[in-house]
Amino acid sequence: MAGKVEARLAELGITLPAPAAAVANYVPWVISGNLLFIAGQVTLADGKPQFVGQVGRDFTVEDGAKAARLCAINILAQVKAALGDLDLVARCVKLTGFVNAGADFKDHPKVVNGASDLMVEVFGDKGRHARAAVGSSSLPLGVAVEVDAIFQID
Amino acid sequence: MAGKVEARLAELGITLPAPAAAVANYVPWVISGNLLFIAGQVTLADGKPQFVGQVGRDFTVEDGAKAARLCAINILAQVKAALGDLDLVARCVKLTGFVNAGADFKDHPKVVNGASDLMVEVFGDKGRHARAAVGSSSLPLGVAVEVDAIFQID
Amino acid sequence: MAGKVEARLAELGITLPAPAAAVANYVPWVISGNLLFIAGQVTLADGKPQFVGQVGRDFTVEDGAKAARLCAINILAQVKAALGDLDLVARCVKLTGFVNAGADFKDHPKVVNGASDLMVEVFGDKGRHARAAVGSSSLPLGVAVEVDAIFQID
Repeated sequence: MAGKVEARLAELGITLPAPAAAVANYVPWVISGNLLFIAGQVTLADGKPQFVGQVGRDFTVEDGAKAARLCAINILAQVKAALGDLDLVARCVKLTGFVNAGADFKDHPKVVNGASDLMVEVFGDKGRHARAAVGSSSLPLGVAVEVDAIFQID
Repeated sequence: MAGKVEARLAELGITLPAPAAAVANYVPWVISGNLLFIAGQVTLADGKPQFVGQVGRDFTVEDGAKAARLCAINILAQVKAALGDLDLVARCVKLTGFVNAGADFKDHPKVVNGASDLMVEVFGDKGRHARAAVGSSSLPLGVAVEVDAIFQID
Repeated sequence: MAGKVEARLAELGITLPAPAAAVANYVPWVISGNLLFIAGQVTLADGKPQFVGQVGRDFTVEDGAKAARLCAINILAQVKAALGDLDLVARCVKLTGFVNAGADFKDHPKVVNGASDLMVEVFGDKGRHARAAVGSSSLPLGVAVEVDAIFQID
């Protein structure tokens, strides 16, 4: 039986993907005490990179926010894999959003909002997190956004 | 009555600003167990971005350090908002300093020292922290420096 | 008497360097509860920066991975300085790898694998960590890679 958070995902029309396997000697998540660390997630869908390019050059801010939302969906897939039940999330503690962007770009916060908004849509007040949003000169696979996360579990 | 740390701030001639509101679905700080996570703070003063541009191109390293110090003052404002009393800080655990800089820049540590020095001026040995200092291709609002932080509280 | 992990380092032919001193008001490591935070380590050997330049322009991906491995060796030197005994590491929790790279670079994961692989070679399954790998427009001293780390201790 699906939990409250999964019911909320269904209301939002979001189907969590199979969590991406780490393709190296790292793992997608580590639980340490009450903290769940999620590895940086990029804009993969069905195993293929989406939103390949720079925000501000190849993508609008709005598209960048969609890319960040996709990263956040992939984060949730890892949380589900880690905990089994998304209802065990006590708090989304921190997101760090890396935006593939050139020197003149200034709207990193609006891009990373795509990930932040999803956390609050899904978890409500428990989804409100501390955050950093910064520019990166490039990102894995050439994608536009990467987001990593720390959650608190009960 | 002001605490010891606030008295120290007064000695240093530093008035903490009103903490910047998060302008999206994130929050400026989250407490999880004994850790206080502060969202990335930029060079806002009176709500307006200062030090807009790249260090090494538009700003000297010395100016970059002043920008980092301003980020650190904004971090302290959030810590005060989170804890009420800065004396409750047990340790500044980690700062990550993102410097808006081009490919030839090498002095990120000297820039981020502006934030590190303030932590030690204010908290003494409790202010000595682990740190990463890296270059970013661009930062929110076009500012020169962003710093996020983790504190330990008792 | 050397512990298990140090014996493994000897098998791998790795001699830990003297840990680099922090050259400012920060420290190379902070222990907070069960977490050990290691400051960002760069490609120093014998106190001199190695691998100075951009991956993809000045260095191949393979050389970048060697640079990341050197950062990881310097991380281990700090862990040893912090704990005295590397056997006290319960888990490598998180690595964040910053790769000095231009806009067209896509192979950050392969570069940061140099650090990830070392953690697993040295610690076995305890070395498997969550990770973020991102591009930086530049790094301290002009080096190609910087890696910071969080460990769990018992």
